[in-house]
Amino acid sequence: MSRIPVAILGATGMVGQRLVQLLLNHPWFEIGALCASERSAGKRYGDACTWRLEGDEPPAWVFDLPVVSTAPEAVPDGIRVALSALPGSTAKTAEPAFRAAGYGVVSNASSFRMDPDVPLIIPEVNPSDLSWLDRQPGTGFILTNPNCCAVPLGIALAPLHEKWPVEAVCISSWQAVSGAGYPGESAWDIVGNVHPHPGDEEEKLTEEPQKILGASFPSSARCVRVGVADGHLMSVQARLAGDPSVEEVLEALRGFTSRAPELPSSPTPLIHVDTRRDRPQPRLDAMRGNGMAVSVGRVEACPVMGIKFYCLAHNTFRGAAGAAILNLELLHATGRLPAA
Amino acid sequence: MSRIPVAILGATGMVGQRLVQLLLNHPWFEIGALCASERSAGKRYGDACTWRLEGDEPPAWVFDLPVVSTAPEAVPDGIRVALSALPGSTAKTAEPAFRAAGYGVVSNASSFRMDPDVPLIIPEVNPSDLSWLDRQPGTGFILTNPNCCAVPLGIALAPLHEKWPVEAVCISSWQAVSGAGYPGESAWDIVGNVHPHPGDEEEKLTEEPQKILGASFPSSARCVRVGVADGHLMSVQARLAGDPSVEEVLEALRGFTSRAPELPSSPTPLIHVDTRRDRPQPRLDAMRGNGMAVSVGRVEACPVMGIKFYCLAHNTFRGAAGAAILNLELLHATGRLPAA
Amino acid sequence: MSRIPVAILGATGMVGQRLVQLLLNHPWFEIGALCASERSAGKRYGDACTWRLEGDEPPAWVFDLPVVSTAPEAVPDGIRVALSALPGSTAKTAEPAFRAAGYGVVSNASSFRMDPDVPLIIPEVNPSDLSWLDRQPGTGFILTNPNCCAVPLGIALAPLHEKWPVEAVCISSWQAVSGAGYPGESAWDIVGNVHPHPGDEEEKLTEEPQKILGASFPSSARCVRVGVADGHLMSVQARLAGDPSVEEVLEALRGFTSRAPELPSSPTPLIHVDTRRDRPQPRLDAMRGNGMAVSVGRVEACPVMGIKFYCLAHNTFRGAAGAAILNLELLHATGRLPAA
Amino acid sequence: MSRIPVAILGATGMVGQRLVQLLLNHPWFEIGALCASERSAGKRYGDACTWRLEGDEPPAWVFDLPVVSTAPEAVPDGIRVALSALPGSTAKTAEPAFRAAGYGVVSNASSFRMDPDVPLIIPEVNPSDLSWLDRQPGTGFILTNPNCCAVPLGIALAPLHEKWPVEAVCISSWQAVSGAGYPGESAWDIVGNVHPHPGDEEEKLTEEPQKILGASFPSSARCVRVGVADGHLMSVQARLAGDPSVEEVLEALRGFTSRAPELPSSPTPLIHVDTRRDRPQPRLDAMRGNGMAVSVGRVEACPVMGIKFYCLAHNTFRGAAGAAILNLELLHATGRLPAA
Repeated sequence: MSRIPVAILGATGMVGQRLVQLLLNHPWFEIGALCASERSAGKRYGDACTWRLEGDEPPAWVFDLPVVSTAPEAVPDGIRVALSALPGSTAKTAEPAFRAAGYGVVSNASSFRMDPDVPLIIPEVNPSDLSWLDRQPGTGFILTNPNCCAVPLGIALAPLHEKWPVEAVCISSWQAVSGAGYPGESAWDIVGNVHPHPGDEEEKLTEEPQKILGASFPSSARCVRVGVADGHLMSVQARLAGDPSVEEVLEALRGFTSRAPELPSSPTPLIHVDTRRDRPQPRLDAMRGNGMAVSVGRVEACPVMGIKFYCLAHNTFRGAAGAAILNLELLHATGRLPAA
Repeated sequence: MSRIPVAILGATGMVGQRLVQLLLNHPWFEIGALCASERSAGKRYGDACTWRLEGDEPPAWVFDLPVVSTAPEAVPDGIRVALSALPGSTAKTAEPAFRAAGYGVVSNASSFRMDPDVPLIIPEVNPSDLSWLDRQPGTGFILTNPNCCAVPLGIALAPLHEKWPVEAVCISSWQAVSGAGYPGESAWDIVGNVHPHPGDEEEKLTEEPQKILGASFPSSARCVRVGVADGHLMSVQARLAGDPSVEEVLEALRGFTSRAPELPSSPTPLIHVDTRRDRPQPRLDAMRGNGMAVSVGRVEACPVMGIKFYCLAHNTFRGAAGAAILNLELLHATGRLPAA
Repeated sequence: MSRIPVAILGATGMVGQRLVQLLLNHPWFEIGALCASERSAGKRYGDACTWRLEGDEPPAWVFDLPVVSTAPEAVPDGIRVALSALPGSTAKTAEPAFRAAGYGVVSNASSFRMDPDVPLIIPEVNPSDLSWLDRQPGTGFILTNPNCCAVPLGIALAPLHEKWPVEAVCISSWQAVSGAGYPGESAWDIVGNVHPHPGDEEEKLTEEPQKILGASFPSSARCVRVGVADGHLMSVQARLAGDPSVEEVLEALRGFTSRAPELPSSPTPLIHVDTRRDRPQPRLDAMRGNGMAVSVGRVEACPVMGIKFYCLAHNTFRGAAGAAILNLELLHATGRLPAA
Repeated sequence: MSRIPVAILGATGMVGQRLVQLLLNHPWFEIGALCASERSAGKRYGDACTWRLEGDEPPAWVFDLPVVSTAPEAVPDGIRVALSALPGSTAKTAEPAFRAAGYGVVSNASSFRMDPDVPLIIPEVNPSDLSWLDRQPGTGFILTNPNCCAVPLGIALAPLHEKWPVEAVCISSWQAVSGAGYPGESAWDIVGNVHPHPGDEEEKLTEEPQKILGASFPSSARCVRVGVADGHLMSVQARLAGDPSVEEVLEALRGFTSRAPELPSSPTPLIHVDTRRDRPQPRLDAMRGNGMAVSVGRVEACPVMGIKFYCLAHNTFRGAAGAAILNLELLHATGRLPAA
């Protein structure tokens, strides 16, 4: 059976490599084009990119693929979908160009996440926001996934919010270095150290979950980078309307099922509830459910906010690359992909 | 000028070694006796202990000192003060025994911290709680210092609490491995990982600052061990009565001065306010003020609690060993040491 | 088709857990019994052991299995093979007991590795040493695999030694903490640090490869533990008879094929030759070939010894657990397993 | 007493910051000018540089100093000495320009280390090579210190080489990330990982010690970056003429005394011989002798080369910045500084 070809924008970076890896054995999609900067265009993929993911490399034919420019006209005919791993600055112009050319753009970039016409989707949580795509003119569109911390936070809050609306939330994070791309953080800042995030990560983690949950509540985040390769851990202290008990919260987390149609990359269970006192941990738990599950642990009464817990997910499988591919799967399953 | 001899209880462990190191060049005190377990008693200190602190070792004569049992009768005559770095289980019986023998016991153990007759003191914050010693019968007494996270938290909250009483506080921590002693954490739990604290650290961090500040407020802590050798970082989100502005909070922090008489180990400034977006960091900031200063950074408005900031201190200099020695200095400066 | 049941000795430790994990989906073998210390015997496996491997846990039925004592009489009838992950001290008595009871014992322990009647086997390298089993009296036997550093060293040297006998070798290692078991290394010794191995690792790394290659040559090793979870890296500087060129060595490494019959866990290629200047690296390369491949890189002329290179393998997949299972596969493929 | 003013070239980088720190309390020298790139020239030092060293910052007046261009004409009159922390590319033109202007340039850059007219000096080892300065025309000159690995290696080999000339040496390194400057290594390459050095570090470590010892011998190095902030550890396997015993080598190491006149930054003892099986370790031993001592441990018989040992030193105190300042002290102590 033939698979749908996909253009990968920003194919040489860390998230781009993860997209390549995930498409290699995907049941529905395959690599259609590898787009990168002008400096890389025209080269073999293997020459344009230094592969830095763990384990076996892709087969040799992948490295022999040609890299093309990040422009619709550079992409071979017959491709109508693009997965974007572009940095924000480039995404700002490149993604609208692809949309204008009729592409369905599924983006991990932050540029358009908070645009009111652009859905910000975690398929298992808010698939119905796909309807916002109709507000975007023409056949092309841009669809985004959240920041790699906002994904597990949004998933962990979803089953709670539907029963006991979130009234306020305090968050602290222990974030992996892969979230910063490559070269990303300097080793000097991380070795035997932790590094408070100087950028706007805290703002993203504050506003994106509200858009996903379709709610508005005070939220306050502290984001710190730590010596972990992959996997973002967060402590969440939340005030929920109705003040549910620990048992009710555990039951809601355990009972949560995806609101999307069945998708190949969505794991069962989606939320792994751990009752051990020192879990979840990034190195041990990030790869649950092939890296697509969210771990929640230490659900306890919070004397200040009502309820508290840890949540964790792999930031390039469940966040970033995997988040984008799940959105692509959702588009396909709901018949919303542009016809080639 | 002669210095006052001090018995160190638990002299072979990590905190005990730090006490030995700090007494070596102390202007008021000197090593009077090195007490350890029965297994170590009778050995040379150099044979009983594996020295594991950074940098040059103590001079050879220290390693030639004899180790004696952790019992008042094993300590040479003329010593009336003991610094205790005992584990909680041992402290429970050994410290009362020393007190009963007329010793002033200055302890880092958690066993008696919450005892209503035992002061829990950070000299610069609540020196007047020394008066509680009068409630303890006899000439001996037990005086304690807080948990190594509660020290910087107590110091950072003190200047705020006196103007705008603390109403509630949410805390998350990035804690160094030295806080667990030796061998402490397994490297497997820490390498490329972070490790949620399975013990009762969160309870200590919740209740001890309330005793120090003489206040009662809801408090909720999450404690996570990270790949840092020394220095505990905390994010604090606090609700303060009167809801002060960021500028008022900064002014209070900068204007804070010690409430104790001048003490040799108390640094100036006590609180280092950092305005850089990625500070404080444990490896870079733990040794400010010879390891005795507390760093506070990222003081910002918190949409949930009102005010938020990071605070950090060295957990064996400012916490543990240094905290105990400061209390010893306070006792001497206030004339409360038992006469030999 | 029915699979052969296997008893796992030392089933609750880190290597024991890896054995459980590897047997779960094995085409030839299955878990027959879980043996552990007297303290654990009688408990559910899930109660006796704290699972500490990455990713999803085994299915629930595994945790419901009963733990039995490490004694032949405690093992259910019909089992005639034991995989031993015992510590050396226990192995010394338990393994001979199982052998005396007619078991084929396939051991990762170091106790009998250098015994002249006990084969020390890497299946792809020296499978013919299986014949030494005939020297052991009775139907039972003990078969061992090498130390987790000696495995990749033995594999990397094998294709060279058969053409240009090894005359001398200098080795340094960057070893992962999982090689020390749990709790193993203290985090204090590893955080922002490296830890020269104080034990007898260097001796093992010196003598075991000689037994595997059936040769005798001067060998000198330095072993240092580093902040890596899994994967031992070694630098090898070797003097080879005939002084082959870099190109000849590369050709020999690339051309090497297993000397064993086809085995399910043996990867193709066995040796991954990497030509990038900063490879292999433990975190990126340890999982090549499902963790069973050996990476070799930086093959260069050595001004002192003639040839030098790095080699690397996963120490609990290719070493320890995987090494034992490969030996078990070899026994089955060669018809040497005791009949049940 | 007035101190000699010194221009620091490359003052904003990591080594430049260490030079600033070391000059602050130096008995003979003081900061005369802070030179940096055109982008920084004209700014306050505090605005041009992000301070990244551990502990308390320099006093405020240092951050108020003006940064000037890296050119002799930009430096205030009355300064005739420059400490260079320039990167190799810039050093190539800037250092000769300062020399031509009559400056004594004391450089940490690698550009001229192997120039036959430029001395490469460790003061305690080969101070008499200062005479080579006479070969450089004019009153100015360039004097260099070795690579930060070559310093401890040169010091450890010196007492051996004078008795038993080095015939060959194999080296492996566990190197700290600060050796790569800032941002230097990517955290992705270091977290839970080690990173074989892809550059020319191995060549430097091979050739520089030979120039320092005035000898020629085969030498082979493997250099690997590890998750350590400061402190390079090396394993050394050496063939020495006359094949001394372990005891003789230990005696030579312990008996070594500096060949230079007394210098303020040279520690006593220069070589710390450690007899514990797991020492030296970078985090614990790098700061011996205020960071200026070299630790040597595990001196043992090497079955391949004759003798083996570990050596370690702080790479920015004893290497880089401290190495340059020691050379400056040597120039002053021998009356070779250009008159102002």
